[in-house]
Amino acid sequence: MGSSTGRLFRVTTFGESHGDALGAVVEGCPPGLILDLGALQADLDRRRPGQSKLVTPRKERDRVRVVSGVFEGRTTGTAIGLLFVNENAHSKSYDNVRDLYRPGHADYTYDARYGHRDYRGGGRASARETAARVAAAGIARQWLSATHGVEVIGWVERVEDIEAAVDPEAVTRAQVEAHPTRCPIPAVADAMAERITAVRADGDTVGGVVGAVARGVPAGWGDPVFDKLDGELAKACLSLPACKGFEIGSGFAGTYMRGSAHNDPFFHDGERVRTRSNRHGGTLGGISSGESVIIRAAFKPVSTIFKPQETVDRDGNPVTFQNKGRHDPCVLPRAVPLVEAAMLLTLADHALRATAIR
Amino acid sequence: MGSSTGRLFRVTTFGESHGDALGAVVEGCPPGLILDLGALQADLDRRRPGQSKLVTPRKERDRVRVVSGVFEGRTTGTAIGLLFVNENAHSKSYDNVRDLYRPGHADYTYDARYGHRDYRGGGRASARETAARVAAAGIARQWLSATHGVEVIGWVERVEDIEAAVDPEAVTRAQVEAHPTRCPIPAVADAMAERITAVRADGDTVGGVVGAVARGVPAGWGDPVFDKLDGELAKACLSLPACKGFEIGSGFAGTYMRGSAHNDPFFHDGERVRTRSNRHGGTLGGISSGESVIIRAAFKPVSTIFKPQETVDRDGNPVTFQNKGRHDPCVLPRAVPLVEAAMLLTLADHALRATAIR
Amino acid sequence: MGSSTGRLFRVTTFGESHGDALGAVVEGCPPGLILDLGALQADLDRRRPGQSKLVTPRKERDRVRVVSGVFEGRTTGTAIGLLFVNENAHSKSYDNVRDLYRPGHADYTYDARYGHRDYRGGGRASARETAARVAAAGIARQWLSATHGVEVIGWVERVEDIEAAVDPEAVTRAQVEAHPTRCPIPAVADAMAERITAVRADGDTVGGVVGAVARGVPAGWGDPVFDKLDGELAKACLSLPACKGFEIGSGFAGTYMRGSAHNDPFFHDGERVRTRSNRHGGTLGGISSGESVIIRAAFKPVSTIFKPQETVDRDGNPVTFQNKGRHDPCVLPRAVPLVEAAMLLTLADHALRATAIR
Amino acid sequence: MGSSTGRLFRVTTFGESHGDALGAVVEGCPPGLILDLGALQADLDRRRPGQSKLVTPRKERDRVRVVSGVFEGRTTGTAIGLLFVNENAHSKSYDNVRDLYRPGHADYTYDARYGHRDYRGGGRASARETAARVAAAGIARQWLSATHGVEVIGWVERVEDIEAAVDPEAVTRAQVEAHPTRCPIPAVADAMAERITAVRADGDTVGGVVGAVARGVPAGWGDPVFDKLDGELAKACLSLPACKGFEIGSGFAGTYMRGSAHNDPFFHDGERVRTRSNRHGGTLGGISSGESVIIRAAFKPVSTIFKPQETVDRDGNPVTFQNKGRHDPCVLPRAVPLVEAAMLLTLADHALRATAIR
Repeated sequence: MGSSTGRLFRVTTFGESHGDALGAVVEGCPPGLILDLGALQADLDRRRPGQSKLVTPRKERDRVRVVSGVFEGRTTGTAIGLLFVNENAHSKSYDNVRDLYRPGHADYTYDARYGHRDYRGGGRASARETAARVAAAGIARQWLSATHGVEVIGWVERVEDIEAAVDPEAVTRAQVEAHPTRCPIPAVADAMAERITAVRADGDTVGGVVGAVARGVPAGWGDPVFDKLDGELAKACLSLPACKGFEIGSGFAGTYMRGSAHNDPFFHDGERVRTRSNRHGGTLGGISSGESVIIRAAFKPVSTIFKPQETVDRDGNPVTFQNKGRHDPCVLPRAVPLVEAAMLLTLADHALRATAIR
Repeated sequence: MGSSTGRLFRVTTFGESHGDALGAVVEGCPPGLILDLGALQADLDRRRPGQSKLVTPRKERDRVRVVSGVFEGRTTGTAIGLLFVNENAHSKSYDNVRDLYRPGHADYTYDARYGHRDYRGGGRASARETAARVAAAGIARQWLSATHGVEVIGWVERVEDIEAAVDPEAVTRAQVEAHPTRCPIPAVADAMAERITAVRADGDTVGGVVGAVARGVPAGWGDPVFDKLDGELAKACLSLPACKGFEIGSGFAGTYMRGSAHNDPFFHDGERVRTRSNRHGGTLGGISSGESVIIRAAFKPVSTIFKPQETVDRDGNPVTFQNKGRHDPCVLPRAVPLVEAAMLLTLADHALRATAIR
Repeated sequence: MGSSTGRLFRVTTFGESHGDALGAVVEGCPPGLILDLGALQADLDRRRPGQSKLVTPRKERDRVRVVSGVFEGRTTGTAIGLLFVNENAHSKSYDNVRDLYRPGHADYTYDARYGHRDYRGGGRASARETAARVAAAGIARQWLSATHGVEVIGWVERVEDIEAAVDPEAVTRAQVEAHPTRCPIPAVADAMAERITAVRADGDTVGGVVGAVARGVPAGWGDPVFDKLDGELAKACLSLPACKGFEIGSGFAGTYMRGSAHNDPFFHDGERVRTRSNRHGGTLGGISSGESVIIRAAFKPVSTIFKPQETVDRDGNPVTFQNKGRHDPCVLPRAVPLVEAAMLLTLADHALRATAIR
Repeated sequence: MGSSTGRLFRVTTFGESHGDALGAVVEGCPPGLILDLGALQADLDRRRPGQSKLVTPRKERDRVRVVSGVFEGRTTGTAIGLLFVNENAHSKSYDNVRDLYRPGHADYTYDARYGHRDYRGGGRASARETAARVAAAGIARQWLSATHGVEVIGWVERVEDIEAAVDPEAVTRAQVEAHPTRCPIPAVADAMAERITAVRADGDTVGGVVGAVARGVPAGWGDPVFDKLDGELAKACLSLPACKGFEIGSGFAGTYMRGSAHNDPFFHDGERVRTRSNRHGGTLGGISSGESVIIRAAFKPVSTIFKPQETVDRDGNPVTFQNKGRHDPCVLPRAVPLVEAAMLLTLADHALRATAIR
C-alpha cells in the first residue's frame, strides 16, 4: 500500500532507485486533453539531479515515455502509463550501506516494516520515485491550466536562516527559474547560493522552506470533514521526502494573532465574493474560497552528509558510517517542483470531485 | 465525499450541528475487544462544551450510544454504530446568519460548493461533528492500548505567545487534565487562563499550538510514498476545524539546523535499535522508527468574535455582522482531544495495515 | 470492512437484527434534491416482512428517519444519515441457536471469521440489514429519476419451475405490485402463490429468479477493465442474501448461440445510435449502450426450513436442529426491492463517475 | 477509473492493444516471497494467442518483465511493476474500423463514454489488457500457494451445447492442459475441438462456460454485507471480456430445489467443521466455509465473426462491416486462465483482509 494517491485523478507509482524502470499510472485524466510532451519533460528537468552546480552532479536520465492512454496526441480518458527506463544503474557503490542503517534515512524503518529491502540508493524510499509523481503532476498541470485556468508556482522561500519575502500573488515562474536556487528574489538567491556552496565545502547540508501558490482556483473545491483541501495538501507535502512541516495561509504565525485581526473580511468586488486579505490561505472549512491557495512546506537538512556518523549495522553492532558518492547539500531547489506536484495532484483530484457532486 | 477516513480502521461520520442526530460508523475494529463505555464517554466529555469557565458555556449533550457492532460487551468485528441524539436543538438563534457569510467560517465556501446549506450553527462544518470522530477515536484508543500498548497524549503547548516547554516523553494525562487549559505546566497554565479570560472580556479570541505524543508505537508502521505515517497525521490534523499548520519532530525549527546536527544517530540499547535523539519525531521515510511520534498542530484564533465585522450577504450586499450567542474565546483546551483523535485514528489504521502486509 | 459500497454515491450501513438501531450513511448524493420521504418509506414497505400472506408474518417496524444531510426538504450534498430504531427486539427466541450452526446460514463462517458473533437473528448477517440499503437506494432512485429519467423495475420471474415470460421493455411497477408475489403476469403469479402456500404447509422452502430492468440509462455509464457496469451489478446482486447467480442480457442462455446470431446490429433511429436487439443487456465493454440494462439474479431456497436438520454445535458435537419461529417460505417477492436496490446504487455511482470524468 | 482492483492485494493495469507497452502495478504482495519467474511466464503463455490451432493464430509477444518490487529474487513488499513491451504492433489493419461501430464490441460505448478512443484493436477495451491481470494473478497464485496452500484450477466446462461433467474436487491442472481446448475430459474435449473447427470454417463463433475451483481456502475469508467473497468473485468474472453470467455453488440450477434438499448439513470430520455436500459453493453469508469455492462463468460467442454485419459509422450512416484479420472462433480455452486470475486476485485480497482484521 501507499503507492497510490487521489480518488478521481488517481496516480499509482512504482519503481526503485536502481531497478530496471520506474513509472506511474494516471487514472482519471479526462479525455481530449492535448498533451504537450515537451512541457511534460520540462517539468521533469526541473526535478532532475545535475541541473546546476548547487545540486548533486549525478546525472540521471529522466526521459519520460507515455506508453498508453494517449492517442493521436490527446488523452483517451483511460489509464495513462508513464515510464522511465533506468539506464546504467550502478549498484556497486552501495555495498557499504547494505548492512547498516544510515542516520536520517529509511533503511532501518523499511527493515522493520518489511524485513527485506532493496538497499541500493534507498530502494523504494529513494527520492528518485518523485520523478514519477512529477510526471503525473505535469499532466495535472496541463489539464488544470487548460480546463480551469489554474496556475501553480512554487519557490524557495528560505534556506537555513536566509529568507525571501515573496509575494504569492505576483511571483512568476520565470522569476523562479531565473536562478538555480529557485528563489525569485535575486539578491536573496545569491546569498542562498553562497551558503549552499559553503555548506557543501564543509561536507554538511542545510534545509529550509518552500512556498507555493495556486492561483485561479475557483470557490468550491474541497470536501468536508476528513477530505478537506488543506488536509489533502498537507498529506501530499508531508509525503515528500524530507518534509517535516506544513502551513496554509497564516499557519503557525497566525496563532500569535487575535481573531479580530486574523479574520478576513468578505466583500463583493462587483463580480464575485472575495476577501480583503488572505490569511486563511484560500480555504475555509476545507473548501476553496476563490482566493489564492498559499502553502509552505519545511524540509529538513539533507540526511546524507560527508562527515563520519555513529550508527549500527543490521546485527546491532555499532559502526561508524562515512558516506561516499555525490549528493545534494540542499534539497530546496529541487523540492520546488515536488511541492508544486503535491498541489497539482491534490487540486486536479478535487476539481473532479467538485464536478461529480455539486 | 469527505465523511470517511482510514483504509482498514475506517470511520464514517454524519450529522450537523442542529440535525436530529449525529454519529459515526466504525469499520475494521477487530473482534473481541472489551469496550469500556465509561472510558469512551470520558473521552467525549473532554471535548464537550461547557466543561470549564474557559470554554463556551453552551451545554451540549454528548451522550454516546453504541447501537451495533458490540455484543455481550465485546466488539464483533462488524460495523460499530455510534449515535448522538441532539436534544432541544434551538435553531431560532441562527436567523441572523442564514443569509450572510461570517468571516473566517465556511458559510461562503459551502454555498460555493453545494449551493444549499444548513446554516444553523455551521451545519456540517460545525465543530460539533468532531464529537463523532472523538467517539470513534475512543474505540481506537482502547484497541491500541489493549493490543499494542500504545498511549497517545496531547496538551496545550502555546496560547498566543504563552508557551510551555513540555517533555513529550514524560508528560502524563493526569498532568494535562489537572488544569482546565490542558497545559500540563501549572504556572504556564495559569498565565494562559488569565490571558483567555482577558481576551474574552475584550470580545476577542486567541489561537495557539497543541502538542501530542504517541508512545509505544513499534517500528514498522506506515506505508511508503503517498501514505506515509507523517502524511496521514498531517491530513488528520489539518482536517480539524481551525487547524492551519502541522509539524512532526523538529518541524519548521529543524530547518535552521545543519544535517550533521539534525541526524539522529542510531544505537542498540541491548534489546532493539534506537536513536540517541528524536528530531525525526518517530518516523523515517514515513514509517515509524520505534521512537515516540511527536507532532504539533497550529490552531488559528477562533473566528467567532464579539466585535462588529464587515462582510456580505448572499446577494453580495455589504453588511455589518455582530455575533450573538456564546462561543469559545480559545479553542485550544478542547482541541487537545481532537488532535489525540487524529493521532489515534491514523495509528489504528496503520497498525492494521502493518498486520495485513508484512 | 464490507459495510460500504460505491465510490462516489457511497453507502455505509451498520446494525444487526437485534441491536438498538441500524442505519445507513449516504455520501455523494448531489445537493438540491427534493427528497420525498413518503416515497422513501414506500420503497421500504415493499421489503418489509409481514406485508402479505406469502411472506413471513413477523412484524418489523421499518420506519426510517432522515437525521442529517437534508435541510428544508432538500439534500445538502453532505452525508445523509438514515436511521431505523429497533423496538421490542426479542432475543429470547434465539437461545436454541446460540451454540449451533444452522445449515445454509452464516453462523459457522462468522465464527470462523471473527470468533465472536451476535447470534440473535443472524446478527450482522441478517437480511434485516437490507432495510438500510433499500433506504439508501430509495434516495438513489429519486435522484436518478429526477436528474436522468432513469427507471428501475424488478419482478419475480420464476419460483422453482414456474416461470413468467416478462417483457422488460413494457413491464410496469403497477403490474408488479398488483400481486403479492410481485410476478407481473397474473396467471403465473397465481400459480406461484399456490406453490408457495403448498411448500409452506410442508415446512419447506423454494427459490427462484428475480429479473430487473433499468430503462433510460444513457450510453456512456461504466468504467473499463475492473469496474465495468456489469461487474458492479453482479457484485451488488451477489452481495444480497441468498443470491447464487447473476446474468446480464443473454446470460447463460446466450452461450448456446453463434456469434452471428448473438451480435446486436447497430442502427441509427434518427436521433441516436441503437441496437436492433438487446442480447447484450445494455452494456458493451462494461459501459452502457443506451439500451435497457437487463439482469437476472438467482436466489436459493430459503435456508430456514421447518424440518429437522443434521448439524453440529460449536464444540463439534452432532446435533439435530429443529427451527422454531416464523420465516419466509419464499424470499422472492421481498427480493425484488433488493435487486432494484442493487441496480439503483450501482447506477447512481456510475452516473456520478461519468459526470466527473468525461 | 476502473483500472484498479483489490483493496489490499491491489492491482492497477495500463495499456492498449497497440500502444508502446502495457503492464500492471501490484501493491500489497507481502515481502519475502520467492518469485518464480518461469512459472509466471508459464501462466501468461496459457493466455497467449497462437498457442494452438483452436485459437487465433496471431502471434503476440507476452514476455513479462518485473521492473520493480523484487530484489535478489524476493518481493520487497513495495509496488511490483510488471511490463509488457509491444513490439511491431501494426495498426494499419484497423483503418477499416476507425469510423464504425463493430457489433458486439465496445467501440460505440467508448465513444459515448469518452468521445475519443484508440480504435486500434479495441484500444483499452482489447482483451490484450488481460495479459496484465494474468501476470498479476500469477504473483497472487504463488503467494496463495506458498502461504496458504490454496490451489486454483479452471477448465472449459461447456462449448455451445457440448458439456463436460467435471469433478471440481478431483480435476488437475495436468488434465486441463492435456488438451488444447482445456476441457479435462478427453472425449468431450475432442468433440469441442471438432465443433470449434467446424464453426471457424463457417466464419462464425461459439461461446460456453468455464468452471473453476479454489481448493484449500480456509474458513473465514470474506467480508459481510457489500464485500462478500462471492460478490467480489462475480465482479471479477463479469469484468472479463465477453463474460455475461456468473454462478457460485448450485447457482441457477439450485433455484429448482427445495430448501430441505439444498441445505448442506454440517458435520465434524474429527479435525474441523465441514459440510456433507457443497451446494453452497464454498461461501455462506459471503464468507468462506472451508469447502472448495466453486464457480462458473458464461462467455458469449466471440463478437468478431467473418460474415457481413449491419452497423453504423460514427456519423450514423448505415454500413456493412466485413471483418478482416484473424481472431478466435472460441474464446473458452483462453478464458480459463482469465477466470483463474479473477479467483486468484480476489482470494489474495481477502486473505490479506482476513489477516488484518480478525
